[in-house]
Formats: sequence, C-alpha cells, structure tokens
Amino acid sequence: MRDVADLARVSIGTVSNVVNNPDRVLPSTRARVEDAIRTLGWAPNQQAQALRAGRSRTIGLAVMDVANPFFADVLRGAQARLEEAGYGATIGDADNRPDREAAILRSFRDQRVRGVVLGPIGALPAEVEALHRARIPSVLVDRAAGEAGCTVGVDDVEGGRIAVRHLVAQGHRRLAFVGGPSTLAQVRDRREGAEQAAAEAGATLLAVSVPALDFGSGRAAAEHLSTLPADERPTGIFCANDMIAIGLLQGLVAARIRVPQEVAIVGYDDIEFASAATVPLTSVAQPRRDLGRAAADLLIRELEDHDAGVDHEHRTIVYTPTLVVRDSTSR
Amino acid sequence: MRDVADLARVSIGTVSNVVNNPDRVLPSTRARVEDAIRTLGWAPNQQAQALRAGRSRTIGLAVMDVANPFFADVLRGAQARLEEAGYGATIGDADNRPDREAAILRSFRDQRVRGVVLGPIGALPAEVEALHRARIPSVLVDRAAGEAGCTVGVDDVEGGRIAVRHLVAQGHRRLAFVGGPSTLAQVRDRREGAEQAAAEAGATLLAVSVPALDFGSGRAAAEHLSTLPADERPTGIFCANDMIAIGLLQGLVAARIRVPQEVAIVGYDDIEFASAATVPLTSVAQPRRDLGRAAADLLIRELEDHDAGVDHEHRTIVYTPTLVVRDSTSR
Repeated sequence: MRDVADLARVSIGTVSNVVNNPDRVLPSTRARVEDAIRTLGWAPNQQAQALRAGRSRTIGLAVMDVANPFFADVLRGAQARLEEAGYGATIGDADNRPDREAAILRSFRDQRVRGVVLGPIGALPAEVEALHRARIPSVLVDRAAGEAGCTVGVDDVEGGRIAVRHLVAQGHRRLAFVGGPSTLAQVRDRREGAEQAAAEAGATLLAVSVPALDFGSGRAAAEHLSTLPADERPTGIFCANDMIAIGLLQGLVAARIRVPQEVAIVGYDDIEFASAATVPLTSVAQPRRDLGRAAADLLIRELEDHDAGVDHEHRTIVYTPTLVVRDSTSR
Repeated sequence: MRDVADLARVSIGTVSNVVNNPDRVLPSTRARVEDAIRTLGWAPNQQAQALRAGRSRTIGLAVMDVANPFFADVLRGAQARLEEAGYGATIGDADNRPDREAAILRSFRDQRVRGVVLGPIGALPAEVEALHRARIPSVLVDRAAGEAGCTVGVDDVEGGRIAVRHLVAQGHRRLAFVGGPSTLAQVRDRREGAEQAAAEAGATLLAVSVPALDFGSGRAAAEHLSTLPADERPTGIFCANDMIAIGLLQGLVAARIRVPQEVAIVGYDDIEFASAATVPLTSVAQPRRDLGRAAADLLIRELEDHDAGVDHEHRTIVYTPTLVVRDSTSR
C-alpha cells in the first residue's frame, strides 16, 4: 500500500480512499492510484475488503488435532457445506494444546474471518467470547451441551453405555476404560456412560488414565495392563477413541496377549483404519462428516440471519452413536 | 472501521490514518478516533497491520489432503518450527483438487500471509507465481525437483527402486504397481523407480492406475486383482502409498487371498497405521515431520534474508527414503 502511495505520489489515506470510497477522490488522482496499483500488481485485497465491509468470505475451522482422522472427516464435511455456500475455509490445528487453541482463535479474530467452527479441547477459552464481541459467530462441534452458540454433538454418555453393554453381553465382568485427558468433555461423557453400564451389570470397571487420544497412549496402557496377572487383568476394554484402541491392540499383540480371546477391545469413532486394524476393531460410530456438515450449516444459517437482520435462535443438534461389531470383541 | 468512523464523526480515511499514520492526524481527532476504537472493541487488527507493514506473522500451509496422515505429520513438523520462530500457521486443505489448491493460494495471497509452504497436487498452479509477484515466498514440500523457490523432498525414484528390489529379493517375479493419479510427481517417480528395479531383475510389472491415494482406490484395485486367475495374478505388489496399500490389503483379505503367502504388499510413507494394519505393512519410510520442519525452516531463512536485504539463494533438500520390513512381505 505504501509502495502504491509512493508511486502515485499520494498519501496512504488516499490509496485507502480509492479502495474504500472512490467517490471521495478526484478522478485524475484516482486514475493515478489505479495505475500504480496495476503496475505494482497490488490487488485491493480481501483484507482491505474485509476492513471495508467488516466481513470476509472465509470461515475459520479450529480443531483439536488434525492428525486424528475423526477431525479430518469433520473438516471434510464442514468444507463441503461451506463450498456449496461460496465460503472458503482456513484451518487451525490446536495439536491438543489449549494455548494453541486460544492463539488460533485470536488469529481468526485478527484475520476477521466471517465465522468459526470450533471442536474445542476442553473448557471454552475466553477467546470465544472475544469472537462474539467482534460479531464473529461460532458453532461448536463434537460438543453436546448447548453453550454460547449453536452446537453439534454426539450423545457420548450413550456411546459409553453402548460400548460397555456390548462387552457385558459378550460375558465380560472385569472391565476397563482407557481414556484421557479428563479435561475433555468427550472423555468424561464416554467414561460416565461406561460406568453406568458397568454398574447396571454389577461389573467392575478399572479406569486407566492416559494423557491423550493417540497411539502412544494406547501403547502405554498396554504396557501397564500386560504386567497385571492374567486373572486380575480386565478381559473387556473400552477405549475413549480408536487411536488409543489401535495403540492398545498393537501393545497387547506385541506382549502376546490374544485379542479377543484374552482381551476384547471396543474403540470409539469408527475411523476408516478401525476396520483395517491387525484385529478389525469393534467401535462406536459417529457420523463424522455429518457432524462437520451440520456445524457449517448452522453457521451459515446464523450468518444469513445476521445479514437479514433477523433474530437468530441458537440450535443444538445431538446425534446418537451406533455400535459396529468386528473381530476385536467377537469370540 | 465504518462504525468507528461514524462514532468519531470522521472519514474512514481518517481512521485509516490513525492506524497507519497517526502523525498526520490532529491530536484531538486522534483521541476521538481512539476512544471510538476502544468503545467499539475494534482492534487495529492483523489485517490493518498487514496492510500497513505489508506483512503478517502468519504462514499459510497448503496440503493436498489433510485426511492423509502423511500430510498431518508434515504439518506438525512445519508448525513446530514456525512456532519456535514466533509465526502462526493457517492450513488449507485442497482435498486432492487442483481448483481447491488454486483457491487456497489465492486466499493466502488475499490474506497477505507472510509466506507459504505448499505440498502441491501436480503441476504448479499459476497462483504460485502470483504469490511471488506479491512478494510472498513459497517453499515446496514433498517435491524433489528445484522449481521457483526452495524445495524439500524425498528421492521417490529411489523409494520405488527400494520397494521393488525388496519384492524381487523375496522371490517375486510377477509384480504390480498400484498408484495414481499420474498427474502427481510422487506417483510418477515411485512408478519409475519400480519399473527400473523390475527391468534390472527381468521381472514383469503390471501397472494398475487408480484415481487417488486413498483407501477406496486400494479396495478397487483389490477387486480388479482378485478376479485374475491365481497363476496370472501378481504376487508382489508395490502401492504408491500406505492408504492404497491398506485398502488393497483389506480387499484381498475380504476376497480370501492370503497376505503375504499369496500376495506380498509394500506401501509407502510408513504412516503410524502401517504397523497396526491387519497384516503389519512393509513400507518405504519418509521422514515426515522432518520434511515439514525443513520446509518451514527454509521459508523462515528466506524471510530473514528478505528482511536483512540480503540476496536469497534457493535451496533444495532431498531425503533418501528407507525400507521398513514387516509381515506383509516376509514369508
């Protein structure tokens, strides 16, 4: 912008006026500025347009972990819906760190994205409120409870119940839940459902806390569980997600514990890899793309309501998960 | 910005000057504008700062497919290095579509990101040149050939040779390559290396073209190959990536063809899931995180050179892949 101003021998304010309020600039000056813009290849860009109109056509998508195929699918669903409506998407990857999540939301606000879809890590960061103050609406995805805005989620308590009832139906009474961190609402809800179903059946449920929803955590849990004597070791294990379950499966197989003969495993998410695992994995399935698509759709409706000057009513969509049974639990 | 101008009873140009050239504004007017900015919670934001300084602290990372764990790891490596240097990252997911890749690069340019790391789909889009004209440098990742800028890649021809030499060493003479689309340099290079190694050994290599580097393509290839009579079917198959290999493995297992007894499979990328597959997968390993980290590092050096007014010399880093042997090829 400064280069354009220098070349056209005008102030930056005048360049800004040519972009924002061309009527206020003398035609001869305007022609000179427009020549300079062309010469330098400087496009009056989205930033300038966003500054002018207070809006852009870009939506920020912030997820906990892009390396988790669950979120990759949520992103795909959201992007497909946004594209239909003529919006672009920019993605932020929090890498499971609340400080990164907060930084991404600040950056979205600074970039003046039009709206945000957030798959939050834990408690909602203060930055969500700051977005709303800047009139940037947000939709939460993978979060069942209605908070400040529309939300799309899955009934994870029911998901936990479904998983453990299945293990109980297969004859298991020594059960375990492997998951973490407990700051994640998804982890707490799945565990709560698991505890309810274990209590219903009079079964014991050992809780194994792990640091993250990843392979390494599953392998660490396998190391712990494989040291237990066989007659104390849980025989039915429900994992908070498929990546933990696949890591656990790998660790148990390496320790020569047979799945499902000695230990049955249920995962959560039914990612594409679940069916391709060493022992194909029984898993609680969520409509991953639908979650993303629905979140983008609610955001688009909210933006349309704002544009039309209509009061917007926040909505909460809750999907019920289903169980996909494979070899990791069937004897 | 308009709200601020209205509240302070000044023109938008004046607000712009308060942000960009405060010296040019009367102190009393400036105070009024600053009050309005505070009242409305409008932060002279990154966009305004980027417009003013012609730069931001955000780097755009554009990848072919976020759902491919290879790229998730490349992103992680790049983000780690950027964070160390105080840069933020915004991610664009091309979803294997050149039109989306072009749109992402246009959006990065409009957002005035400071630089771009691109894992390109195929031929470089014209938008890369447009970025350079706008003085936004780019680094190509997962692309070995030096093009307009720094590049970080892997010697994929050598990777293809390594894979097929291993199959030949295991006694296979009827070989196949499964990969696509051939618009991808990675696919062409891996195939070329495979063809070289097959020719060296006097073995036949059937090429099975598939539309994408994903599970579905692998399953489709399995459907095709499982219809061949057993004495014509290739016994050693090299897949252009692990996702195809895992889909192929699933499809062959479903068709009751035993891996590795009847068909041995080699994948490429050694993603974390490779070792957890139904039959743990032999794979050509690339230093995924290192690729991302090195690309970010080259970009940071280029930005530093620009800032210091030093001539920048583009660099090309080429890693040599290695073979990780697992059950899918060992008899």
